[in-house]
Amino acid sequence: MSVTAAQGFVAAGCHAGVKRRRYDMALVATEDRAPVAAAAIFTQNKFAAPPVLLDRQRLAANGGRAAAIVVNSGNANAGTGAEGLADADAMTAAAAESLGVDKADVLVCSTGIIGTPLPMDKILAATPKLAKKLSVEGAEDAARGILTTDHKSKEAVVRGSTFTLGGMAKGCGMIAPNMATMLAFLTTDADVTSEEMTKVLRDAADRTFNTLNVDGATSTNDTVILLASARRGRPDLAEFADAVHKLCEDLTYQMARDAEGMTKMVLLRVTGAASDEEARTAAKNIAENNLVKCSWYGGDPYWGRLLGAAGSAGIAFETEKTSVAYGGTIVSRAGTNAPHDSEAVARHMAGEKLDIQVDLGLGSGSAQVIGIDLGPGYIKENSKTS
Amino acid sequence: MSVTAAQGFVAAGCHAGVKRRRYDMALVATEDRAPVAAAAIFTQNKFAAPPVLLDRQRLAANGGRAAAIVVNSGNANAGTGAEGLADADAMTAAAAESLGVDKADVLVCSTGIIGTPLPMDKILAATPKLAKKLSVEGAEDAARGILTTDHKSKEAVVRGSTFTLGGMAKGCGMIAPNMATMLAFLTTDADVTSEEMTKVLRDAADRTFNTLNVDGATSTNDTVILLASARRGRPDLAEFADAVHKLCEDLTYQMARDAEGMTKMVLLRVTGAASDEEARTAAKNIAENNLVKCSWYGGDPYWGRLLGAAGSAGIAFETEKTSVAYGGTIVSRAGTNAPHDSEAVARHMAGEKLDIQVDLGLGSGSAQVIGIDLGPGYIKENSKTS
Repeated sequence: MSVTAAQGFVAAGCHAGVKRRRYDMALVATEDRAPVAAAAIFTQNKFAAPPVLLDRQRLAANGGRAAAIVVNSGNANAGTGAEGLADADAMTAAAAESLGVDKADVLVCSTGIIGTPLPMDKILAATPKLAKKLSVEGAEDAARGILTTDHKSKEAVVRGSTFTLGGMAKGCGMIAPNMATMLAFLTTDADVTSEEMTKVLRDAADRTFNTLNVDGATSTNDTVILLASARRGRPDLAEFADAVHKLCEDLTYQMARDAEGMTKMVLLRVTGAASDEEARTAAKNIAENNLVKCSWYGGDPYWGRLLGAAGSAGIAFETEKTSVAYGGTIVSRAGTNAPHDSEAVARHMAGEKLDIQVDLGLGSGSAQVIGIDLGPGYIKENSKTS
Repeated sequence: MSVTAAQGFVAAGCHAGVKRRRYDMALVATEDRAPVAAAAIFTQNKFAAPPVLLDRQRLAANGGRAAAIVVNSGNANAGTGAEGLADADAMTAAAAESLGVDKADVLVCSTGIIGTPLPMDKILAATPKLAKKLSVEGAEDAARGILTTDHKSKEAVVRGSTFTLGGMAKGCGMIAPNMATMLAFLTTDADVTSEEMTKVLRDAADRTFNTLNVDGATSTNDTVILLASARRGRPDLAEFADAVHKLCEDLTYQMARDAEGMTKMVLLRVTGAASDEEARTAAKNIAENNLVKCSWYGGDPYWGRLLGAAGSAGIAFETEKTSVAYGGTIVSRAGTNAPHDSEAVARHMAGEKLDIQVDLGLGSGSAQVIGIDLGPGYIKENSKTS
């Protein structure tokens, strides 16, 4: 029941015809159609899509509240100019009319190909039917309606002592970026303000969604929205923050495992950096380096490439102080080979989840990112639009 | 005759046994074995290889001069620690002894796999034979001796009104980074100082070698060295600088065309940026973006990805002011589709050399980089060490 696990929410999904066969629309609404506190974080990309621009305006204008979120997949409504903004607005107007709410309280998200106008006739025709399907049981359909190249729905629930938190997501834009977007929709029955949720969500996203590094790109449409029905009163804020982090982490792992063309997921830790920020810079440089990613695909513990990527990251780096470990086995110290159990390393490299640590030996700064290998599947997926 | 086209230089190449069959050593020396003015630029990677560390010391200590350069391919002598530094020193000592020069005037470069000690027995045994082969006619052998995964030798000559400039190079580390390195060795018979050459070389490299962006990595061993025999007197410095630029440009195009797994070379121009620096940042972000690179491989004029990459580059960007052209045909204006001759674009995309322009419409900043597509060949080349 994911996005409807918390009290006060209903959801639905359907096939509108944007995609040929699969579900391509989703709707999440409050059970009583009253607006509730809402928080959102959006892509930092300056080539942001019209739905992102519209949602930012809405939340700024209404002080952070929403009664519904309408979503389509198959077309990102990005690179569509003024017409795209009018289409996004029309999507919210249609949903508002079907639900009997103010369109100023409806948010909208799109995900799919860039640069092609939305098939508005199909979307507008499907919206009233979609609204009629809304139910607590509709969460699963909604989770299907937001997918693009994803193989599986991504849903999760975390139960706190006085509240429930649930959510659904789709493969992050950085994974299957043909389809352009990472989306996540979260709901809770705790009573928290928009400001409180914004802070909690930003912190959680920085440690979860934003650590998932598939190709270094941020998409035009990335959006995470959290709604709070307040049905079950004030939570312990620390417990709530922890629950949001757990929920986002669960959805992040589901996205990583489902990345197009991916064969290995890598938990990459950089330690011993001069600062946490330098550790993050190093981790990002390593995880985005195509040579490193190819070595992961090949199951090759080629530590020289990791150090090469770290050494060119523009951070404090002293070859003599470094060490590199695969699956807990140190294979390099001081920038050169270290004697090690190569069979243990080979066994680790053959797995689907790699644990790699690069220690810079300089300070106490550390960071972790989730990396993905680079294999032929990625290219196959991304070398043609259609 | 490339590296021996200028008066006063001899060269040789041979098979020492670092690689199984192909040539794997090269030597360039002054004809009379006297040291001459030398300038060099090296990788900025802090995980720099021992030969780079040694050459930096030598040139700093002797004020910028050299009588010879000894090179091996097949093994980069990188990630080899103190032993690697001793091996690099021993290579120069062996060359110095064979040539009857001071080892303080011998430079050394290595290129190939990382993390494995040099087979010094083979290198030391081959050095005296290599020195005996030195001749003006040996340039071609030398150009073969420095190659790794390159398919072809890279040689070029530029003749000025009062001087000749020649050189050889190997595929840049960013292209075939299994093999870790871009090397270029240039010679001239002009009379120029080390300081003058350093400045000219740095400017030229910034506009040529450093604009070649294959995967964003800088290697552990990248080195460009220029020697001046002074045989033909003082040149016009502006003409000399122009000639160095032309030579470096010629070698850069040869490297791009020979990149492993590459099927398309892209001349990517970013114009209308707020500054040249912002244009360079945008061009780098676009050329390194795997989604963009996959679209080039697929021959897909997917302008949305270019704007997505530019929009997340952290520079001034306003969607409404942008335009994107493929082969001179504008396909997008103001962040949305522009009516265009799609057959003309399709013909252009089918070629091996793409011209792409992203105009940001904000200022007069511009930059050009040479990009390479990302296809299965790259992954095949880079997913296994051996």
